Amino acid sequence: MVNVYLGDIAIPYVQGFFDAEIKKMKIKNSYFPLFVSPAVLQKEKDHIEGFAPEVAWVTKSGDSDLEVPIAIRPTSETVMYPYFSKWIRGHRDLPLRLNQWCNVVRWEFSNPTPFIRSREFLWQEGHTAFATKEESDAEVLEILELYRRIYEDLLAVPVSKGKKSELEKFAGGLYTTTVEAFIPNTGRGIQGATSHCLGQNFARIFEINFENEKGEKAMVWQNSWGFSTRTIGVMIMVHGDDKGLVLPPKVASTQVVVIPVTYKDANTQGIYDACAATVREMNESGIRAEADFRENYSPGWKYSHWEMKGVPLRIEIGPKDLANNQVRAVRRDNGAKTDIPMANLAERVKDMLATIQQNLFDVAKQKRDACIQIVRTWDEFTVALGQKKLILAPWCDEEDVEKDVKARTKGEMGAAKTLCSPFDQPELPEGTLCFASGKPAKKWTYWGHSY
Amino acid sequence: MVNVYLGDIAIPYVQGFFDAEIKKMKIKNSYFPLFVSPAVLQKEKDHIEGFAPEVAWVTKSGDSDLEVPIAIRPTSETVMYPYFSKWIRGHRDLPLRLNQWCNVVRWEFSNPTPFIRSREFLWQEGHTAFATKEESDAEVLEILELYRRIYEDLLAVPVSKGKKSELEKFAGGLYTTTVEAFIPNTGRGIQGATSHCLGQNFARIFEINFENEKGEKAMVWQNSWGFSTRTIGVMIMVHGDDKGLVLPPKVASTQVVVIPVTYKDANTQGIYDACAATVREMNESGIRAEADFRENYSPGWKYSHWEMKGVPLRIEIGPKDLANNQVRAVRRDNGAKTDIPMANLAERVKDMLATIQQNLFDVAKQKRDACIQIVRTWDEFTVALGQKKLILAPWCDEEDVEKDVKARTKGEMGAAKTLCSPFDQPELPEGTLCFASGKPAKKWTYWGHSY
Repeated sequence: MVNVYLGDIAIPYVQGFFDAEIKKMKIKNSYFPLFVSPAVLQKEKDHIEGFAPEVAWVTKSGDSDLEVPIAIRPTSETVMYPYFSKWIRGHRDLPLRLNQWCNVVRWEFSNPTPFIRSREFLWQEGHTAFATKEESDAEVLEILELYRRIYEDLLAVPVSKGKKSELEKFAGGLYTTTVEAFIPNTGRGIQGATSHCLGQNFARIFEINFENEKGEKAMVWQNSWGFSTRTIGVMIMVHGDDKGLVLPPKVASTQVVVIPVTYKDANTQGIYDACAATVREMNESGIRAEADFRENYSPGWKYSHWEMKGVPLRIEIGPKDLANNQVRAVRRDNGAKTDIPMANLAERVKDMLATIQQNLFDVAKQKRDACIQIVRTWDEFTVALGQKKLILAPWCDEEDVEKDVKARTKGEMGAAKTLCSPFDQPELPEGTLCFASGKPAKKWTYWGHSY
Repeated sequence: MVNVYLGDIAIPYVQGFFDAEIKKMKIKNSYFPLFVSPAVLQKEKDHIEGFAPEVAWVTKSGDSDLEVPIAIRPTSETVMYPYFSKWIRGHRDLPLRLNQWCNVVRWEFSNPTPFIRSREFLWQEGHTAFATKEESDAEVLEILELYRRIYEDLLAVPVSKGKKSELEKFAGGLYTTTVEAFIPNTGRGIQGATSHCLGQNFARIFEINFENEKGEKAMVWQNSWGFSTRTIGVMIMVHGDDKGLVLPPKVASTQVVVIPVTYKDANTQGIYDACAATVREMNESGIRAEADFRENYSPGWKYSHWEMKGVPLRIEIGPKDLANNQVRAVRRDNGAKTDIPMANLAERVKDMLATIQQNLFDVAKQKRDACIQIVRTWDEFTVALGQKKLILAPWCDEEDVEKDVKARTKGEMGAAKTLCSPFDQPELPEGTLCFASGKPAKKWTYWGHSY
């Protein structure tokens, strides 16, 4: 059986939403090559240090060795910025705002997990250049808000907006913002999507200069930002259960499946007609509904089948329903069954889908929040870490201290690390000390195991 | 200056059209990996023979040699069909119809040409499996008709539908159908898009079997079909001129550009307001229009700029136009200038865009048709070939004869080859002989130089 195609689950809705939003921001879609030459790839020192171990190299075509091996993009800063340098001459060429939907390759060997960590993944990567830091800073947050909306509004997954530590920020960038999700079942944080301000670092290396309004030479400010098919993996892990997928209605390609429940003596044709009419009415109201009329499977088999596929709402129509001019609706998220009258069905179903969407988010948020543990000392920290918590701790924000925490927590689940310092900071009374170093704390930061 | 982003020209409209059409046919989007193992890639002998010299091999990640090198997909038959074998069990699993939008790599060294022949290109590839040859045959033609519509209805490029010769068909397939375009300026044919019936060849190799309705084991019939970013290259070459791109209105992201023509003493604000109102009215009518209000460029500079970008219609509004309640419309395809009243402007513009679309196709077809030369003898053939014609000749349809023609015509422009045998066959009177072999001719076939 063909259970899951990537294109079926969530992607068209997530991609459609984001693509429309960035178009409103005057960001244009583009496409740059898969291959990058070693000379360009290695130009920015921190950047290549971060990515070098994961780069896949093509060294042969057919039976012939290439004169110079060529890399497959792990991300496209170094592919695109030589063109930025050529294209940007004066302030009128700014801002330059491009996006591409593409695949990238990072040859990771640790714990490959479908959708979460794989050698090839699909993503969008935005690359923009501005005349001023102010514009650049503003866009970083505007994009991050779109990522929050993808997770919370579409995928019903709660996330925390925040800033990455110096150790965890994008290699070669100035600062990295992130939306961080958490998987209660495994007790691991996961970076949902990141929006980086690159500062002027790449601009200096790739000579992306422009003449400003005063006629002086200046360097651009750059951002890059991306979300990947990992979003799908997060959604599956947060909502899925023992019966299979659970899809939020907003991203389900089939929102409602209608199943005829017929017995030997039943008015089969009447039931089939009612199912078809129900689907038609819903489709006309913009609900993505379909009926499963296959005769070679029992109703019970079909229930399991569509539950496994995560369809948010099942409608059953049997002889009794037909007689009573009603249908039975069964929610995928909590199994609740309701008989609803056929009159005005589409409106009722729309309400139920909205309720399911909200309930999935609420339940996921309750579970996530129940995992948050505030700690103030190293002892509390290690206990919470053992309990697989999402740990919020006062921190001195020093790179060496994060390295030290990593070294001291190496274990089966991997070392603990910072996830992000949330924008939404609890109060930090003067005199609060760092849980790890005992130095004055500068901010609250999420720590934990991570994917 | 940023002149051309791939995402800007034609692709969203072509992709949107095709994606919607195949969804109507119940074909689902999917995504399979970029990488393919040598064992699977080499399973089908003819197939790998056709692609082996062009395959790019990844042999290293970071500094480490891979234990087994891995190939980058040149096409995805061998990537996808092992899964088809697992997923297809009974006749109820058929038809299985998948499509993916992705990049592929073919390491060609001869004449790289942007969009036309490059090592990496973007395409869609459809892969389908049916219980019967009849269904498979029908789909091949249904898809080919969509490809014709992309070229003729959207890109305004005339194509011939036909069948490829045995020598030119898809490696490992049963037969290949094609839409063939022709570039008059260079005198070369170009394969526009192909729809292949694979027969049961891959099914045998990859063991794609099913239990049919009688409970017997049977093999599936398969198709694969694709069109690539080459469509964009063909469109550019067919319509472009010395001033730059010429975009058919249906695929132009900006269909109309509005340019204020102001002088020192003019009512600048009045003109700007009229331009903005004009754009607003057109946008509300569904026309993709924008105004160029940049103050640092002259109207003349802007005319050239938007001509280079291929925008189908320019609207100029100056003091005289404002006084007369009219605008001046200038067509990109033929330079024709018309004054049109502001009243009911959107309707007039829509008509003009439709006229431009039709005219681009008509002109391209006239030019293409003027290149078609019917020949009956070898001498006529060599003369026509020297004149860079699209040659239609009676042929015996023997593989050795095509090889012989190739050998005898090797020259600066490359050897001549068959382009296709058009479905639309002229009459072939009994006794007509093959132009090359003198044997009885079986069909009319297009020959020529090719990209």
